[in-house]
Amino acid sequence: MKKLINAPEDVLIESLRGVALAHPELSVDLETHVITRATPKDAGKVGVVSGGGSGHEPLHGGYVGRGMLDAAVAGEVFTSPTPDRVQAATKAVDRGAGVLHIVKNYTGDVLNFEMAAELASMEGIEVRSVTVDDDVAVQDSLYTAGRRGVGLTVLLEKIVGAAAEEGQDLAAVADLAARVNGQGRSMGMALTSCTVPAAGKPTFDLPDDQMEIGIGIHGEPGRHREPLAPAREIAAQLVDPILADLDAAGGPAIVMLNGMGASPLIELYLMYGEVAALLEKAGVTIARNLVGNYITSLDMAGCSLTVLKADDELLRLWDAPVVTPGLRWGA
Amino acid sequence: MKKLINAPEDVLIESLRGVALAHPELSVDLETHVITRATPKDAGKVGVVSGGGSGHEPLHGGYVGRGMLDAAVAGEVFTSPTPDRVQAATKAVDRGAGVLHIVKNYTGDVLNFEMAAELASMEGIEVRSVTVDDDVAVQDSLYTAGRRGVGLTVLLEKIVGAAAEEGQDLAAVADLAARVNGQGRSMGMALTSCTVPAAGKPTFDLPDDQMEIGIGIHGEPGRHREPLAPAREIAAQLVDPILADLDAAGGPAIVMLNGMGASPLIELYLMYGEVAALLEKAGVTIARNLVGNYITSLDMAGCSLTVLKADDELLRLWDAPVVTPGLRWGA
Repeated sequence: MKKLINAPEDVLIESLRGVALAHPELSVDLETHVITRATPKDAGKVGVVSGGGSGHEPLHGGYVGRGMLDAAVAGEVFTSPTPDRVQAATKAVDRGAGVLHIVKNYTGDVLNFEMAAELASMEGIEVRSVTVDDDVAVQDSLYTAGRRGVGLTVLLEKIVGAAAEEGQDLAAVADLAARVNGQGRSMGMALTSCTVPAAGKPTFDLPDDQMEIGIGIHGEPGRHREPLAPAREIAAQLVDPILADLDAAGGPAIVMLNGMGASPLIELYLMYGEVAALLEKAGVTIARNLVGNYITSLDMAGCSLTVLKADDELLRLWDAPVVTPGLRWGA
Repeated sequence: MKKLINAPEDVLIESLRGVALAHPELSVDLETHVITRATPKDAGKVGVVSGGGSGHEPLHGGYVGRGMLDAAVAGEVFTSPTPDRVQAATKAVDRGAGVLHIVKNYTGDVLNFEMAAELASMEGIEVRSVTVDDDVAVQDSLYTAGRRGVGLTVLLEKIVGAAAEEGQDLAAVADLAARVNGQGRSMGMALTSCTVPAAGKPTFDLPDDQMEIGIGIHGEPGRHREPLAPAREIAAQLVDPILADLDAAGGPAIVMLNGMGASPLIELYLMYGEVAALLEKAGVTIARNLVGNYITSLDMAGCSLTVLKADDELLRLWDAPVVTPGLRWGA
């Protein structure tokens, strides 16, 4: 295992220490692993909380800031944070208007966020939740009943964060979150495995001449393996299953070509060129895009594609100012 | 070789096609491989041009935009762009106030930018140049006489770009560039080699239990190899040679902990925590920082550290608005 770490058991806490030093605009609680804005939102506005296992950076801590999340809860690598910590984050960001939980669909996350919501409601905080399940690759998976939550989480956090920032109430923010989840799909692939620090070896073996199509963000199995193929064939294997499941033709879309952590930008832009050509050919108008490492899987090489059907309202919220370590524009 | 590409010889052009599709705010010339702003700077302002071999993305094309570069010239992977293309970029961005060339100290780049400057001056364009040579690792190297130009290039492009944007004249901008180059130093290390697409195999062999200290951004040899070490020991091997060469104590500094391309953010933040602690202990006040992939070496795993001694003027220019794909704030 070749990593820039000290001891495997200290990776999360030491990385959070680095985040705290690098970002004085964030407040990092090294006990609970909760990251909040140093300057909280105004009273009367809905709080937005997400979280999950670490190893997907910049998700979620890198999306805390004006126009996006109010708090992120960082579990250990690929491990759900405990309910008491999610509850702590929820309490920390409640400004009297309730809190939205954004949960990726993994069994541990779903259970722990549910329990945290119950604990918070016993303290008088109204909580609504959205479970993101955008991955078209597989129906059930190693850690998930139903579809996994992957790249759409980034886009949803941005759009829903903007709605909360402008003062929409909890019901409206929760409805918006459900609508975004219904209109977005993702599909990923890997050239290599990732290596969890505590395990010390690759999660799975993938021969030098093979790739895995339909991979999740934890190295859990995808749809199938096949020989390495040119980028344009890989692009079709990402675009086709998404469009088979989402009727995105004829309207604007927000598209993300995301790197899994170890694929360099020169390759990600090349892949974006391939998927953009296929999407436009299928009648999808790409109105906005992101190309880069936004939801990663440690040191996995590979990429994922997310397509979100948009409309004027979603594009307006997308364009709203956002000031976070991971996404920043308009302010 | 596991890469998201089609044919090795098409990597650059296909990646540039993706950049063009992703960034309508840029103008990408697929003949000359010159990237310019779609909306040029006002007449009477100094143009700022950089460029060099590709494979270091987001450098340089990702730094074209308001408050930073006016143009970037993309050579083939790890290969200097030809003089005629640098000249084309120079002509494209001249707004009557002259053009600054920012050149990393590699023999090919230095020669080709010099020739381009002569060609441009024959057409009546005044050109000044700065050669960035911030790498303390080695005195001469595979492609360089003198020190290599590495991470400081990012910081210099930002600061000098801000000065040109606010209307400083060519002499002032060139003097500022020389001053920044004199006050900044970098040092890098690699956990793995990179693989140049056209070569199809790693540039060098680095055993599973070894790392290379003092690596350049092309996989050229560093100072020495040694057994893998914990992050805190690696941090000392980056900080110590920089501070041995740069008296940065007692004042503010801008610090960049840069990823080489395949090291995930969770590790880069951890490394930042280590180097920040050492720098503060040595009396350096970190006033601003960057943590992430800003000047990469294809799919190399590893990191580099850059320290720039700052002052109120450099910090003011650093904080000025910048709107590029790779760096964005304040606007």
